[in-house]
Amino acid sequence: MPDVDGARVLADLHALRGIGAYKTGVHKPTFSEPHMRSLEWLADKLPEAGLAATIDGIGNVLGTSPKSGPKLLAGSHLESQNFAGWLDGPLGVVYALEAARVINPDPTVNGAVEVAAWCDEEGHFGSFLGSGSYVGGVTEADIDAASDRSSGRSMRDALRDVGLAGRPRVNAERGRHIGYLEAHIEQGETLESGGLAIGVVTSIVGIWQYRISFSGEQNHAGTTRMGVRKDAGLALARFCVAIDGRFPALCGPRTVWTTGGITLDPGAPSIIPGGAEMLFQIRDDDPAIIDRLEDLLRTMATEVTAQGRCSVKLERIRTGVPATMDGAIQYAVEGASLAFAGGKFVRMPSGAGHDAQVLATIMPAGMLFVPSIGGISHHWTENTADADIITGAQVFAEACRRLLAR
Amino acid sequence: MPDVDGARVLADLHALRGIGAYKTGVHKPTFSEPHMRSLEWLADKLPEAGLAATIDGIGNVLGTSPKSGPKLLAGSHLESQNFAGWLDGPLGVVYALEAARVINPDPTVNGAVEVAAWCDEEGHFGSFLGSGSYVGGVTEADIDAASDRSSGRSMRDALRDVGLAGRPRVNAERGRHIGYLEAHIEQGETLESGGLAIGVVTSIVGIWQYRISFSGEQNHAGTTRMGVRKDAGLALARFCVAIDGRFPALCGPRTVWTTGGITLDPGAPSIIPGGAEMLFQIRDDDPAIIDRLEDLLRTMATEVTAQGRCSVKLERIRTGVPATMDGAIQYAVEGASLAFAGGKFVRMPSGAGHDAQVLATIMPAGMLFVPSIGGISHHWTENTADADIITGAQVFAEACRRLLAR
Repeated sequence: MPDVDGARVLADLHALRGIGAYKTGVHKPTFSEPHMRSLEWLADKLPEAGLAATIDGIGNVLGTSPKSGPKLLAGSHLESQNFAGWLDGPLGVVYALEAARVINPDPTVNGAVEVAAWCDEEGHFGSFLGSGSYVGGVTEADIDAASDRSSGRSMRDALRDVGLAGRPRVNAERGRHIGYLEAHIEQGETLESGGLAIGVVTSIVGIWQYRISFSGEQNHAGTTRMGVRKDAGLALARFCVAIDGRFPALCGPRTVWTTGGITLDPGAPSIIPGGAEMLFQIRDDDPAIIDRLEDLLRTMATEVTAQGRCSVKLERIRTGVPATMDGAIQYAVEGASLAFAGGKFVRMPSGAGHDAQVLATIMPAGMLFVPSIGGISHHWTENTADADIITGAQVFAEACRRLLAR
Repeated sequence: MPDVDGARVLADLHALRGIGAYKTGVHKPTFSEPHMRSLEWLADKLPEAGLAATIDGIGNVLGTSPKSGPKLLAGSHLESQNFAGWLDGPLGVVYALEAARVINPDPTVNGAVEVAAWCDEEGHFGSFLGSGSYVGGVTEADIDAASDRSSGRSMRDALRDVGLAGRPRVNAERGRHIGYLEAHIEQGETLESGGLAIGVVTSIVGIWQYRISFSGEQNHAGTTRMGVRKDAGLALARFCVAIDGRFPALCGPRTVWTTGGITLDPGAPSIIPGGAEMLFQIRDDDPAIIDRLEDLLRTMATEVTAQGRCSVKLERIRTGVPATMDGAIQYAVEGASLAFAGGKFVRMPSGAGHDAQVLATIMPAGMLFVPSIGGISHHWTENTADADIITGAQVFAEACRRLLAR
């Protein structure tokens, strides 16, 4: 049985937390100096697990084993959202590293755990560009077109500045891996509120995103009577409130929806907004539910436009691709949870996107979650209890062992 | 009776439109190159009216007459809102110039019209800094602290760059003027919809402004169930809609209110906003009405906070100072409207702020409005029919003559 070193797992996570620290979290946007230093930290560690390290031309770190026998791929990512938490990404990478460290040198194990850190899972430059590149879904033209959402810097410039331009990108060797396993913090409070230690991920929801634009009439905020106004901002506010009133009747049990951004045009205190735009997102693992909700949004937009004050335009700007996690991998994680987490596990879908959904397009893939304190995520206060981190590492390594032993 | 040259008025307005043209309007922020060229254009024109021109240390243009007898001050402003209309400001300046050109050389008139273009009425750097300086209400420290709302450039740097640093600021000579008259486009549709030519302004409303901040809990938009969210953006949208439902029961007949700006924090599609802020404005000429509405806002904020999801903070960031226009000046404009506009005038308050409210703190002040096509303002499509422009110029000059003749 793998002999996971909990103190070593915590020490590695704290080492990564110290690179690009921000309050109790980190600030490591993709291709920032602390991100690159984190990649190098991992590359330096991989030989401890008998793995040869490569940082490829898109910033993926890959550790490959010379051992014969089955290979299991495991990993996550090392960059962070801006000013965000210390475990979102690094937890899964360190678990994979630890599993490889305890399993690969074991002469009784046939095969090896190989480790990956996928670049830009957090989407600073695109959507799963690192894992997407590994599975063969990213073209050179895609990279030409990508740029940093915050700074506007092109991905080509970023790759050149960090010294990765010109390096080959590593593609998956078909048939090499029996599957992919990724650990992650839950980022919600299902585990914590249920007193559970492990979430066995059954599916990863798809993300559908919409730009909803309102056109009214820009005018002077002092001289335009209330009765004749065509206030695009007010129309947007009404729409947000109406969504919240009407979605519950049609959504599924786990559907979530969010207005993450609002912009008024021109956005000045003395001008009635002539335009307004909201970024709206829906997540579910059932496309049929999304179809119903999107129909409702279109009906609502038509209703507002028909009232004659403001017109509403709905554009779908992202289409979700829900992914089903492999049954045998779920079974292995459950068995490991029975052995190392007192059976305190639950099967659950992932409401967040993860690289596992990309790997799932070419091999069996699975995930496990550990609890997030207060369910907080994408914020520097994100945290997990040390005991839960260690339990998760043990379950992860045991699941890897069981998968290799099948 | 003054012999206004309508073609000359239109030609002057088109000359100013040609400086800093943007589509059919203009883009002349304060201290921009086209703004400074417009000030010089006026300084060059003032001698045609027997006036000596000065551009002072805050960018006010002042034309003073050597004639004996009463002096009437008249004017408006030459800078524009960003990418805005051609008449908002220049109309009043050219009317003042034309009135001075026809009245000042007339040996039968005792006294003169003096012309002013007040700097920064549009508030790029502050609130009525030009007219405020003239009435003695702007200190050197106020100028030290002022900066461009768009670019952040300090007012000191701007004054230096346009060559005004070190020039003295001209202060009003107490007792010199019998009053101040300003013409402006209405910026609303009261005149147009009533088939009227002239608005006789009775008062200028005050502007009260508020920053309303919502604090919830920032979290992951995929993993946080709807029932446990503390979405500050949704709380803000509900608040906007609630204002629109509850204000009508307490407001006055001409109260207007506007949410001109909304910001979500952090404003990303996959993050539930933990913070949200709206810029909210109320205008009225009756502070008692504002008191009622502000009480309602505080009650609403307390109600939302008491519900326990999000807390609301209300800050008043600007307090309105309504101004009453002088009765004798209103009477003169009415008489002139009977003579030159077929009696098609109406007494009305101004929903927009104007330099006249600042001049009213030290001398009798009045305003007249001409129609705005479609009520459109603060937009490059702003316009007024040529016939209305010429009628307004005739009424303006005649009102000046009547005031000097009293």
